[in-house]
Amino acid sequence: MGWWSKDVHSMNDLFVHALRDIYYAENQILKALPDMVDKATDPLLKQGFEKHLHETEGQVKRLEEVFRLHNVEIQGVDCPAIDGILEEADTTVGDADNKDVMDSALIFSAQAVEHYEITRYGSLIAWAKLLGKPECARLLEQNLAEEVATDKALSQIAESGVNQRAAA
Amino acid sequence: MGWWSKDVHSMNDLFVHALRDIYYAENQILKALPDMVDKATDPLLKQGFEKHLHETEGQVKRLEEVFRLHNVEIQGVDCPAIDGILEEADTTVGDADNKDVMDSALIFSAQAVEHYEITRYGSLIAWAKLLGKPECARLLEQNLAEEVATDKALSQIAESGVNQRAAA
Repeated sequence: MGWWSKDVHSMNDLFVHALRDIYYAENQILKALPDMVDKATDPLLKQGFEKHLHETEGQVKRLEEVFRLHNVEIQGVDCPAIDGILEEADTTVGDADNKDVMDSALIFSAQAVEHYEITRYGSLIAWAKLLGKPECARLLEQNLAEEVATDKALSQIAESGVNQRAAA
Repeated sequence: MGWWSKDVHSMNDLFVHALRDIYYAENQILKALPDMVDKATDPLLKQGFEKHLHETEGQVKRLEEVFRLHNVEIQGVDCPAIDGILEEADTTVGDADNKDVMDSALIFSAQAVEHYEITRYGSLIAWAKLLGKPECARLLEQNLAEEVATDKALSQIAESGVNQRAAA
């Protein structure tokens, strides 16, 4: 059973469920990132993961503020999508034996996480505005901006030499 | 166990595994789309899903051509990420009781699928170029362009009235 349940009848219910879905996802990402920091070899990639770990802590706090502003209980809900994405990332981290290929694979995995968050925040922001909650939308927009910047930074790190070394 | 396995030592191995991952994903999406066509109420959304169903058939054929150009067996590999994303989509389709909210939820689910594909094709294209396979990159770029266009179209459909009706 995913995030959807029979108690979703309105856009407000949908918004709350999606908020709980991304709250669960961000918390799972928080648990996964330290291992990605450890496994990264490229210094820029390692720094990038460290930076995003701190950002993610702030994103979780912003989501908790959105819950409060929306007057609903702070609570996650199982999210099979992020579980699947992180399961793939985890097996990458566990099994690679070439450090350069590992770095490329870490970027590959991390960008799937970023894109998942980008699409979820996109929907949440649109819904928050329609529900007349611009203050919630603003907090979600801050999280979205960080995810977009992280995805772009990962592409730049990949192009800065990581992929080239892995292909050598 | 995800797409990664101990036989991945090079970028070429990584490329082949990621190709098998997206090949599996596209085939799972092919199976999921007819149900999304059936469940959509908004005519533009229904047409959009139908169009993307035909596009996805063409994308699978392009991927098979990439396998041939790269001289590797056409074969999928389990992809927990797309399985998780589609599991969430499926529960949405199964349980919603409000047609307008359902349409918003279908767009929400479909955009997660599109973003997964966008990030995977992005990595595959970068790697194909580094591996000296521009003809593979060109085919993958055609698939990517269709995914980006589909994601944009879904946002436009959401903004054209679907979300507004769901919020009413």
